[in-house]
Amino acid sequence: MANPVPVAFSAGSDGEWRIDRVSPVIGASLAPAQRLAVVEGPTAWQGGAGVWRLRGTTSNLRYTAADERDRLVAVQQGLGRPAATRAALIPIRKVEAWWDLPQDERRAIFEERSRHIAVGLRYLPAVARRLHHCRELGEAFDFLTWFEYAPHDADAFEELVDALRATEEWRYVDREVDIRLSRE
Amino acid sequence: MANPVPVAFSAGSDGEWRIDRVSPVIGASLAPAQRLAVVEGPTAWQGGAGVWRLRGTTSNLRYTAADERDRLVAVQQGLGRPAATRAALIPIRKVEAWWDLPQDERRAIFEERSRHIAVGLRYLPAVARRLHHCRELGEAFDFLTWFEYAPHDADAFEELVDALRATEEWRYVDREVDIRLSRE
Repeated sequence: MANPVPVAFSAGSDGEWRIDRVSPVIGASLAPAQRLAVVEGPTAWQGGAGVWRLRGTTSNLRYTAADERDRLVAVQQGLGRPAATRAALIPIRKVEAWWDLPQDERRAIFEERSRHIAVGLRYLPAVARRLHHCRELGEAFDFLTWFEYAPHDADAFEELVDALRATEEWRYVDREVDIRLSRE
Repeated sequence: MANPVPVAFSAGSDGEWRIDRVSPVIGASLAPAQRLAVVEGPTAWQGGAGVWRLRGTTSNLRYTAADERDRLVAVQQGLGRPAATRAALIPIRKVEAWWDLPQDERRAIFEERSRHIAVGLRYLPAVARRLHHCRELGEAFDFLTWFEYAPHDADAFEELVDALRATEEWRYVDREVDIRLSRE
């Protein structure tokens, strides 16, 4: 899983996921569209853009320590569970002041003060999650996080995103869009 | 500088730098060529590849702590010094086992045990350096490090690369090419 996987999230008229809403949280939104296709692998970034297309790659852990990684691995579940018919795609961008911080200061904000990993752990295994990086790809966002959960875990998912948005880390976010999706 | 800058290193018949030698250190080498062009900015990755082309981007710090960053900033110098007529481009790739490690274990190997930052500091400001990331770009290498120094600092530069290659960190390197260059 450490080997980066190119992924494209393509909004338009095709795709497994129905787009239920596109909501701006911070800054400019993205255009509405009907369907979203999630395409993975070496050719994911090829072809047309449809209404919009966001590109990213999986990558190695950037902040997670060994004990945290072990706790995550013990309980998290993968994408594609049949019961997980709800999804969210949340692209965010962070300000330059975040990226200018040295590694230890970013880690302190991310976990020691914002509890990003600890908060996420509380919602495992209900909410499956995959992070995609795109800052180095020249994209409009820095991260694309994809979440999948069952309808009966929808309230828990709202708690999770509300908790993260209330953190010190989130003060460094200057663009965020919240895209909710479903499939039958 | 935290904002990623796309950079292409294009080997062929053109470019400011003369390629003096291309040496395999670990694994497969790159083809010989006469000149190297270093192209930066939004259009850097466009156009043909010549003999070979390596793409990367500058990025944020991944391991450097605040005190280390401050010591680096206090003494390091930028690229393009007129006296720095020697350069080295050293592409490396690390094994999957490296990327599978959590952040704290990579940091411990990188600095607490291999002294990567501390060793580099000993050769500042003589050796100017810029790191480019390319693991998420689907390139053959994970990092492209570019060094510039004056001819009278050539021995110091050899010490630096020898010291890094002797570290625990370097046991995770499974491909490395050492390209030496000069300009008038």
